[in-house]
Amino acid sequence: MPSPNDAFANPEDAMRHGGLEFYREDPDVERYRRAHRNDMENIFPFLFLGAIYSLLDPNPTIARIHFLIFFIGRLVHTAAYVLALKAPTRSVSYSIAQLPCISMAFQILFSVASYW
Amino acid sequence: MPSPNDAFANPEDAMRHGGLEFYREDPDVERYRRAHRNDMENIFPFLFLGAIYSLLDPNPTIARIHFLIFFIGRLVHTAAYVLALKAPTRSVSYSIAQLPCISMAFQILFSVASYW
Amino acid sequence: MPSPNDAFANPEDAMRHGGLEFYREDPDVERYRRAHRNDMENIFPFLFLGAIYSLLDPNPTIARIHFLIFFIGRLVHTAAYVLALKAPTRSVSYSIAQLPCISMAFQILFSVASYW
Repeated sequence: MPSPNDAFANPEDAMRHGGLEFYREDPDVERYRRAHRNDMENIFPFLFLGAIYSLLDPNPTIARIHFLIFFIGRLVHTAAYVLALKAPTRSVSYSIAQLPCISMAFQILFSVASYW
Repeated sequence: MPSPNDAFANPEDAMRHGGLEFYREDPDVERYRRAHRNDMENIFPFLFLGAIYSLLDPNPTIARIHFLIFFIGRLVHTAAYVLALKAPTRSVSYSIAQLPCISMAFQILFSVASYW
Repeated sequence: MPSPNDAFANPEDAMRHGGLEFYREDPDVERYRRAHRNDMENIFPFLFLGAIYSLLDPNPTIARIHFLIFFIGRLVHTAAYVLALKAPTRSVSYSIAQLPCISMAFQILFSVASYW
């Protein structure tokens, strides 16, 4: 059953769920879209960095600390984004999650530096 | 030669192709942009999951079935998105393509569970 | 201190930096957002292609040429996008950066062709 708050990005979806007037943007959906986009911008590079970093045979405890900081930082970032928590919760958790990525990137660069 | 239907996301592109009045959004371009974005949201994680899953030494036939379902699901999803096929073609093909990803994610988690 | 040119994608950020009237879009921010999005669309696939290609044991000099062309192409692409350089600088640099990706994709496909 259609709800007065429905919103669809595609006209064919709106037609199926109440009518073309629901083909529109919604502030909450746009917020989740921005959160998802920020996830893509950060989590995909992390997956690559983490995979290459793991090939460097790192100390497992140090590797876990890297991954755990990223995981918690992104978890808080998502909560802060979706719940619109008071600034600067979101930007601080974003910055904390960047730290293990920067650390892994430098360790990868150092380990290949001798080949350049 | 400029066409009356041209649309450009950047003013410098529009200036080169007919004038600033073509610096505008176009419903079809926005549709393809959403399809492309959905591809990024789904295909990039698949590439990572598929690579790690392949390191688990899976049965090649079962691995092929995983990859084939994803491939066909995403192919139908793109056709359904671009051609605005009747709902729920797009969402069903999206969901089918998620199944091998969820399966691979669980197999990866199970295989590393003993290390936690 | 708030600047009259500030713009924020989230109301809670605008509230912290001068008021809700700064919850708005900005043409330059939208431009950088498009540049960043184009990076995701191209650099993430390159990371995957480059990693799989490296597993094929390629000639190191040829591999370096692939990576270098991509790197320079994307560097020029970003400069052309952010500085709004005269067309077709951006689209030419985009196309040049695609060449090593297409080359790597074909080499990967050829190397696995015997398994299909």
